Amino acid sequence: MNKQIKMGIVGYGNLGRGVELAIQKNADMQLVAIFTRREPGQLSTVDPSVDVYHISEVEAYKDRIDVMILCGGSATDLPEQGPFFAKMFNTVDSFDTHAKIPEYFETVNTEAKASGKTSVISVGWDPGLFSLNRMLTEAVLPAGETYTFWGKGLSQGHSDAVRRVAGVKAGVQYTIPLEEAMERVRNGENPVLSKADKHFRDCYVVAEEGADKEKIEREIKTMPNYFDEYKTNVTFISEEELRRDHAKMPHGGFVIHSGKTGAGNKQNIEFSLKLESNPEFTASVLVAYARATYRLNKEGQTGAKTIYDIPPGSLSIRTPEELRADLL
Amino acid sequence: MNKQIKMGIVGYGNLGRGVELAIQKNADMQLVAIFTRREPGQLSTVDPSVDVYHISEVEAYKDRIDVMILCGGSATDLPEQGPFFAKMFNTVDSFDTHAKIPEYFETVNTEAKASGKTSVISVGWDPGLFSLNRMLTEAVLPAGETYTFWGKGLSQGHSDAVRRVAGVKAGVQYTIPLEEAMERVRNGENPVLSKADKHFRDCYVVAEEGADKEKIEREIKTMPNYFDEYKTNVTFISEEELRRDHAKMPHGGFVIHSGKTGAGNKQNIEFSLKLESNPEFTASVLVAYARATYRLNKEGQTGAKTIYDIPPGSLSIRTPEELRADLL
Repeated sequence: MNKQIKMGIVGYGNLGRGVELAIQKNADMQLVAIFTRREPGQLSTVDPSVDVYHISEVEAYKDRIDVMILCGGSATDLPEQGPFFAKMFNTVDSFDTHAKIPEYFETVNTEAKASGKTSVISVGWDPGLFSLNRMLTEAVLPAGETYTFWGKGLSQGHSDAVRRVAGVKAGVQYTIPLEEAMERVRNGENPVLSKADKHFRDCYVVAEEGADKEKIEREIKTMPNYFDEYKTNVTFISEEELRRDHAKMPHGGFVIHSGKTGAGNKQNIEFSLKLESNPEFTASVLVAYARATYRLNKEGQTGAKTIYDIPPGSLSIRTPEELRADLL
Repeated sequence: MNKQIKMGIVGYGNLGRGVELAIQKNADMQLVAIFTRREPGQLSTVDPSVDVYHISEVEAYKDRIDVMILCGGSATDLPEQGPFFAKMFNTVDSFDTHAKIPEYFETVNTEAKASGKTSVISVGWDPGLFSLNRMLTEAVLPAGETYTFWGKGLSQGHSDAVRRVAGVKAGVQYTIPLEEAMERVRNGENPVLSKADKHFRDCYVVAEEGADKEKIEREIKTMPNYFDEYKTNVTFISEEELRRDHAKMPHGGFVIHSGKTGAGNKQNIEFSLKLESNPEFTASVLVAYARATYRLNKEGQTGAKTIYDIPPGSLSIRTPEELRADLL
């Protein structure tokens, strides 16, 4: 197959590396270059022969890259990079600060409309495939409720919070959905559930030598916003155990919609993910949406787009004829 | 809300009735009329005040109905009705003879292109939401395998086959996914599985008085194409038990995709349905896609479309701004 879609990556952390790996799995794509704010020579890429440039050189690649995948963080990188890159490139990103999506959409849309480029924002799995399922299930069964459960998964934000507690040397936090709550939803009870009613927080902590473990545990469990409302478990482990058993970045979750039709027939729809590598999966979604971005731009559909705007078939390497014959 | 989308129903069996019920749950739709091949006065509709006409009168409603939902069967009704109605109306149907979809698409597409109408074919859940998930998961995780399991569900075709056996007075057949096979898929074994490796067939049979039950059981279990390759169970029950315990039309199933990313990280995606009423659920999907059909036609996107061509957001009663703010 002709490797017609020329890809670029901006930012090379776990997500950028996942994107490099995912591009290798798609026969119609080639990776042209990776752009970084670090010293380009310092990057240890999956394919050592791939071109790495400093981000300041990106403008020279304006006509050589079809879609740029933005792999920066949502807190500070993407609010700047999204609109900046939309001036020159078709882009895809995983902007995930839910509350700021409308504002981010507008900023990116303005730039992409002006440049005639297409920017797909906030894809991945949440926002992304989970958002798609929340919307689809509500549209199909308007008399019903949708519930999102996250986990079992490593939460970066909560792990950071644990590590900020005095006396903590290292640690991780897993968000785990409460099976009882999921069962109530599946049974069609349509319960009112807070985030704390749906999840518990499981922490594995390495304490500094001589630290007061009871105090650490108490401080974690009572930490406002992060832990105080949740059922929280704290287990102290050794540094070796942390390295051995908690080095992966698993995640996942469930979107469950329980609705009724007619005279009260229960109808349940469930979408779930069980991921051994959260960043590699998110990267795989970004890469599939990069294909759609490329095609939408070819069709003249410019501006910012979300997962709700994109015909699903445009994600597939197959032609519409093949999709109808083989997968419908 | 303004009930701006004017709907029509063609055919009033279980599916047509489900569509009438589903339209009632959508505040932006109104049902204008039901068209039937039967004597219109004989129909017992959910809302007794709804207009019912003979199908021969349909042309008079050309400008009064925005979307016509075709609720006929795939064997003989839709191959005729699909192209016929596409000459006059935007249409949605659940054509489900998988092997004939490409041919059906072409016929309907020709008529809809000529009339400037939009026809969404083969929606429901399989084909439909299951097809969407088969495609999406393959696009996101190209290094992986997708498996479809059906059930637990009442199979119309297999129930008919059971009832054709000499000595059988009445009966139903449930298709049930084999839990062991699902577990192998979820574990990432990517096994090669035939339909018979994935399902067993559970029959409940009312025998005629004096009939040879052993012979009936043997004939069912050895019936070519329908049962001979499957693990099949036959239970004899009374007419009363059949009425009491087997009057519903449950169905459902699972689309499970098991893929790998990077250096072998397992990534599982699962979509499942558990439906107390198969026809009412299929009807609900048709009605959501009717909204998209209406919008696509307004945008000038004419011709035949499948679930792969339709931007998901166009199914929702919410505006794109609301979707981005509330569900993304």
